[in-house]
Amino acid sequence: MDFIQIAKKAKQASLEIAHLDAEVKNTALNTIANELEIYKNEIFEANNKDLEDAKKLVEAGKLGKSTFNRLKLDDNKMRDMIQGVRDIANLEDPVGKVLLKRELDKELILTKVSCPIGVLGIIFEARPDVISQISSLAIKSSNAVILKGGKESKNTNTKIMEIINKALNKVHDFPQNVVQQVFSHEDIAKMLKCDEYINLIIPRGGNKLVQFIKENTKIPVLGHASGICHIFVDKNADIDIASRVIVDAKTQYPSACNAVETLLIHSDFSQKEELLASLQIEEIKLVSNPESWDMEYGDKILSYKFVHSIDEAIDHINKFGSGHTDCIITSDKENAELFMDKVDSAGVYWNVSTRFADGFRYGFGAEVGISTNKTHARGPVGLEGLTIYKYKLVGNGDVVDDYAKGIKSFHHQDI
Amino acid sequence: MDFIQIAKKAKQASLEIAHLDAEVKNTALNTIANELEIYKNEIFEANNKDLEDAKKLVEAGKLGKSTFNRLKLDDNKMRDMIQGVRDIANLEDPVGKVLLKRELDKELILTKVSCPIGVLGIIFEARPDVISQISSLAIKSSNAVILKGGKESKNTNTKIMEIINKALNKVHDFPQNVVQQVFSHEDIAKMLKCDEYINLIIPRGGNKLVQFIKENTKIPVLGHASGICHIFVDKNADIDIASRVIVDAKTQYPSACNAVETLLIHSDFSQKEELLASLQIEEIKLVSNPESWDMEYGDKILSYKFVHSIDEAIDHINKFGSGHTDCIITSDKENAELFMDKVDSAGVYWNVSTRFADGFRYGFGAEVGISTNKTHARGPVGLEGLTIYKYKLVGNGDVVDDYAKGIKSFHHQDI
Repeated sequence: MDFIQIAKKAKQASLEIAHLDAEVKNTALNTIANELEIYKNEIFEANNKDLEDAKKLVEAGKLGKSTFNRLKLDDNKMRDMIQGVRDIANLEDPVGKVLLKRELDKELILTKVSCPIGVLGIIFEARPDVISQISSLAIKSSNAVILKGGKESKNTNTKIMEIINKALNKVHDFPQNVVQQVFSHEDIAKMLKCDEYINLIIPRGGNKLVQFIKENTKIPVLGHASGICHIFVDKNADIDIASRVIVDAKTQYPSACNAVETLLIHSDFSQKEELLASLQIEEIKLVSNPESWDMEYGDKILSYKFVHSIDEAIDHINKFGSGHTDCIITSDKENAELFMDKVDSAGVYWNVSTRFADGFRYGFGAEVGISTNKTHARGPVGLEGLTIYKYKLVGNGDVVDDYAKGIKSFHHQDI
Repeated sequence: MDFIQIAKKAKQASLEIAHLDAEVKNTALNTIANELEIYKNEIFEANNKDLEDAKKLVEAGKLGKSTFNRLKLDDNKMRDMIQGVRDIANLEDPVGKVLLKRELDKELILTKVSCPIGVLGIIFEARPDVISQISSLAIKSSNAVILKGGKESKNTNTKIMEIINKALNKVHDFPQNVVQQVFSHEDIAKMLKCDEYINLIIPRGGNKLVQFIKENTKIPVLGHASGICHIFVDKNADIDIASRVIVDAKTQYPSACNAVETLLIHSDFSQKEELLASLQIEEIKLVSNPESWDMEYGDKILSYKFVHSIDEAIDHINKFGSGHTDCIITSDKENAELFMDKVDSAGVYWNVSTRFADGFRYGFGAEVGISTNKTHARGPVGLEGLTIYKYKLVGNGDVVDDYAKGIKSFHHQDI
């Protein structure tokens, strides 16, 4: 089918799912979870086909080992994937929340109500578990979604999508075409141009993918192209806290976007040599003169430099950081507050590992991703980031002319 | 000065104003108001120069009469302009609001705090009063701003900007370069490309300007390109309410974006002929077969058609509307709710004139504009739309590894 037809169907589906009862959406999610459970062996079979093809590519040096690992579904990943769908069913409905209720004048009532955004376009790489996660988040937030996955997982994706749509067909009152999939590389280009029907693009993948998407669409993009996170060790830092936090932020999962990449140390910190030694013991490779200050290593490598003041640290971070998550280690409350106010990042931390930047850890229950945008949604984004709002105004023949002429006046009372 | 230098200075200013005390910002706004008052005759003089030049253009047929009128500052506009600045000073500070405070675990506290977006780029046409309004909104919300006004009002704009910056220089602790102006047409192109430093573009002007800007930038744009508002008169409508609301929505200010452009009437509404006659008495020109259903007349002209069901009306609006403001006239509560749920617009109204779609009427105190976006901010946008948020996380050496290993667990308690 032509992409534009798929997009039109998604738009229609988005209008239908927009006002669907929470109960029907939750039934849909639980049905998906049940069917994934029932047909999981079929998914493993499809995944094996993809893995066989991928193995050849790895052997030929055309596919990285880490991509191969992300592609592979095992019992644990399958269990988490199914549980993830049930968890989203159990979250509070993000749609239809009353955000403001105000009497503008007697019997003239304004209500601001959360509602879905419309049609989401998702572009992701080799992780097939993304399909059920993103589809579930879209359904829960009453958005339609078009997914484009990596070609390496085509068999797995197709099977999972088939099971999801078979499940949705069984649910009474659930609209058609809420969850659709496209396959070809050309579909990405078409999706990025389709601002008439697609309201938000969410890329899930490496920096290059995200950067490419941000460069090539007028549609709002929710995500982050890079994660250059900093830790600044202040003059009055506790060395145990500093060492413990840096080791966690660098080694607990080095390829994560919230791992630390640059360490800034106040030149007056008296235990700086011990601190650096403690990091080397943990097999962190220290680079004192990196080629550039915006390197995202994704490995146990850490750039570092000495700074002469907290202001120099803040300036460095605002200049070279990616606005993701940055931390100060200090015993000085005033400096901590200065740092958290002046560093312009989605997450500003005090004596805490940058690895906490995550929707689950923040208690959002599920996560679309982490945004470094300065509009709409910032930091870890849960269901709320997939909603917007509309204003309902109810009266009884009220006209603006009465207010323009001074016959009536507003009293603006929140109720 | 080169645009990129101006943009860099704005970025630096945005970092400095981000954490400025509310008191300093309000002093700045009141100082601006005072100085505008003191030097208003200089502004009138500058405006007269612009008006002389504009008069020649009008006589040569190169400038519309309505643009000329918008360009002209009189005593009333000046008074409103100065009062507008004082009103913004009196509004609640939108920055530093605690939007969420959550204990993730014992002594590990997450706080979500509102903060400014950064640098705003404003592109507006011939209304010089926009400068003080937008500058005040930017200052109040702790954003830096770069303004590009129409060349017709260059003398007036330059004088107003001079007075604003002279006022800001007198305010202790107020950073440099928060409010800057550019003049040339080439600066628009440079501004639209400057996504490294500019975080949000707000166009204030006609459809063509807004459409051009939306087509030519990757920076988020807040605004609306068109306002195709509908009124649907249901089978069970009260004819007096219908007539009163339509007349207000079409004639109270026909060139406003929230004026009605299309009337849909249920074919079973028994008083349809009387309704149409009542509109013609008010000198509304009715067009039963318009060239297209997305005409924005900006005049006392109204497209209309008969529909056979509420669903047909909803489908028409979702297809041809601009997502601005749409209204149902009915005595049937169920239909009203169906309409308000299913119409995908920023404002969905019941028995009320579409002209109410306005930040002042909603009680926001001031308005940046009306947005038909589906992300960030929708409908009339006040100060809140000029903010985003950051997450502050405070702990005592907390690391993710403890949670990954099950040594500790989150309890996610809002406090």
